[in-house]
Amino acid sequence: MTTTRTARAFHLTGRPDGFPTPDLFSLVESPVPEPGPGQALVENLHLSVDPYHREEMDSGWDLYTPLEGRAVGRVTASRDPGLAEGDLVFHRQGWRTHALVTAGTSGTRRLPSYEGVPLTAHLSILGGTGLTAYVALTRTLEFRAGQDLFVSAAAGGVGTAAGRIARVLGAGRIIGSAGSAAKAARLTGDLGFDAAFDYHDGPVGELLAKAAPDGIDAAVDNVGGDHLAGAISAMRDFGRIAWVGAIAQYHAADRPPAAPRNLYDVVGKSLRLEGVLVRNHLDAQAELEALLVPHLRSGAITPDITVTEGFERTVDGFLGMLRGENTGKMLIRV
Amino acid sequence: MTTTRTARAFHLTGRPDGFPTPDLFSLVESPVPEPGPGQALVENLHLSVDPYHREEMDSGWDLYTPLEGRAVGRVTASRDPGLAEGDLVFHRQGWRTHALVTAGTSGTRRLPSYEGVPLTAHLSILGGTGLTAYVALTRTLEFRAGQDLFVSAAAGGVGTAAGRIARVLGAGRIIGSAGSAAKAARLTGDLGFDAAFDYHDGPVGELLAKAAPDGIDAAVDNVGGDHLAGAISAMRDFGRIAWVGAIAQYHAADRPPAAPRNLYDVVGKSLRLEGVLVRNHLDAQAELEALLVPHLRSGAITPDITVTEGFERTVDGFLGMLRGENTGKMLIRV
Repeated sequence: MTTTRTARAFHLTGRPDGFPTPDLFSLVESPVPEPGPGQALVENLHLSVDPYHREEMDSGWDLYTPLEGRAVGRVTASRDPGLAEGDLVFHRQGWRTHALVTAGTSGTRRLPSYEGVPLTAHLSILGGTGLTAYVALTRTLEFRAGQDLFVSAAAGGVGTAAGRIARVLGAGRIIGSAGSAAKAARLTGDLGFDAAFDYHDGPVGELLAKAAPDGIDAAVDNVGGDHLAGAISAMRDFGRIAWVGAIAQYHAADRPPAAPRNLYDVVGKSLRLEGVLVRNHLDAQAELEALLVPHLRSGAITPDITVTEGFERTVDGFLGMLRGENTGKMLIRV
Repeated sequence: MTTTRTARAFHLTGRPDGFPTPDLFSLVESPVPEPGPGQALVENLHLSVDPYHREEMDSGWDLYTPLEGRAVGRVTASRDPGLAEGDLVFHRQGWRTHALVTAGTSGTRRLPSYEGVPLTAHLSILGGTGLTAYVALTRTLEFRAGQDLFVSAAAGGVGTAAGRIARVLGAGRIIGSAGSAAKAARLTGDLGFDAAFDYHDGPVGELLAKAAPDGIDAAVDNVGGDHLAGAISAMRDFGRIAWVGAIAQYHAADRPPAAPRNLYDVVGKSLRLEGVLVRNHLDAQAELEALLVPHLRSGAITPDITVTEGFERTVDGFLGMLRGENTGKMLIRV
C-alpha cells in the first residue's frame, strides 16, 4: 500500500450569510502526519457530507482548522494496539484525506467485517443517516408493523433510510415527499415507497392528503414548516412525528422559522411531536446492524447513495447536497 | 327530601363571535321530569364550567337544547337498580338543576363514599381537571420525583391540580404562571408552588427564565403561544411538554393560533411536545383516587375551588372562568 506524501484538508475561512458559497472553504495541504504512540494513520476512502454541516458552518466548526465529519478509511500505519494496518475504520475526521485516530475515542471504531456489505453502507444506511432513521422510527415513534408513515425529504439520506427501515419493520403504506418529479418517481420506483409527490406541485398539505387519503400514523420529518404542518393535518389521532431536522430552515438567516399554523391540532388529536438527535442514540448502532446486515448481505437492501468523485470536489458535493441534488446519502469518494 | 316543581336548564341560542356574551344563553324552565324504567332523577348540587365549554359553544353543543357538563347531584327518585334514593352521582348533564341518568351510561357513576372527602373534590381534583393534570403528569410527561415543573395558567383548575399532584409525586421545584399578582401570590402561598409570576409583568420567556434560572424538566401547558414558547426556551435537554389546551386561543376567531417561533428547539434539545385530552384517559380515574384520597382525607390536600353561588348565575361563573376570575376549579353551587 502506498501513501501519498501530501495530506489535504478543507478549512472554513468565513461564516455564511444565507446559502453557503465555495469561497468559504479552502483546501490546505500539509505533509502526511506520522502516528504518535497510541495513534493510527488512516487514509480516508469515503467522506460524508451532511445537512448538519450547514449548522456547523455557523458556529460549531472553528475557522482555519480541518473540518470534521463522518468518514471511513483504511489504516496505513498504526501505533494503536486496537488497530492494525489494513483495518477499515469509521471515524469523525472527514473533510480530509488523512487522519490520525485512536480506536475508542471520538467515535472511532474498527468496522466489523461484514462480508457482502458494501463499505459505503457504513456512511449511509448503517451510518449516521441510517441510525437517525432507525432511532426516529424505533425509539421516537415506537413504530409498529402495519402503521402508515410519511417521510419528508424522502429522497435524501435520512429519508431513503427511513423508507428502507420502515419496510423492514413491517410498515403499511409509506409516503414520501421530494424536491423534483424525478425524485418522486424514484421513490415509488427502486426506493420502495408506496406513494410520493414533488412538493413543488402545490401546497404540501393538499399533496399529502391526496397521497394519503386515509391519513397517517407516523411521520419522520426532515423539513419542518409546511411539511410539518402537512404531517399534522394528515395525522390520525395519537399520531407521532419524529422531527429530525429542518434543512429548509438552515439558510433562513433572518426569517423566523416557519412554525405550523395548525400546531394546536397537537392537542385536538393527541399527537406527539418529538425531536431526535442521533448523537444521543449512538448506543443503538448494534441494533441497527443486527436488523439490517442480513438484508444488506442478501441484497434485499442496497445502500441508497449519490457519490461525488474526488476529494477536491468535496465542497461541490456538500453544496449539491444542500441544493438537494443527491438521491439517498451524498458521499465523497476520496 | 323535597323536590322543586320546576326544573331549569340553560340552552345556547347562538354561536359566539369572539368572547361569548350572556345573551347567547337562555334559562329554560320545564316540569321536573319523572324517571322512566332504568332511570334515576338527580337533583344537581354542584356544576362544573370548563374551558372546553367555550369550544363546545362553537360547534359541539346543539342550540336550543340543555347544555352538557360535569355535575354531581343526589338521587331523589330511582327506577335504576344501580342507584338508590340518596345516592350521590357524578354525571355529565350539568348546566341544569335536574337530570335523568342511568348508572354506567354516558359517564354516569355512583360516587364512592369517601368519608372526609368533600363532594366538590369530585368536580375538581378528583374530577375532569384533576384527571387531566394526573394523566398529563403520569402518562404524557412520565413525571418522576425530583423533576422541575412549569405549569402555565397555574391558578386555574388544571393548574392547581397539576401543582398538588406533582407535589405528591415528589416534584423538585414547581413554577407557575398566573394572570394577576394576587394569583401569583396565592400560588406561592397556600397553593404550594415554589415560584410564580404574573404573566403581565413582561415577556413570559424572560419571567420564566428568572423564576427557573436552572431550567425545567417538564411543563403542563394550558395556554400555548408565548407560554409554550417560554416553556420550550426553559426546557433542559429531553424535556417534555404536556399540552392540555390553549384557553388564550379559543376566542381568536380569525387570527391564526400563535405558534412558538422557537419551535425548532424541539429538535435541538430533543424535546417532546404531546397533546393530551382527558377523554382518552378516563380509565385512570381509579389510579387518581387511589393516589389522592388519603391526602384528601388527612387534609393534606383540600380541593382548590372558586364557587359561584346559585344556579341562575351559571353563565356568570362560566364567563368569569373564561376571564380568569377563579382560583382553582370554578364550580357552581346549585
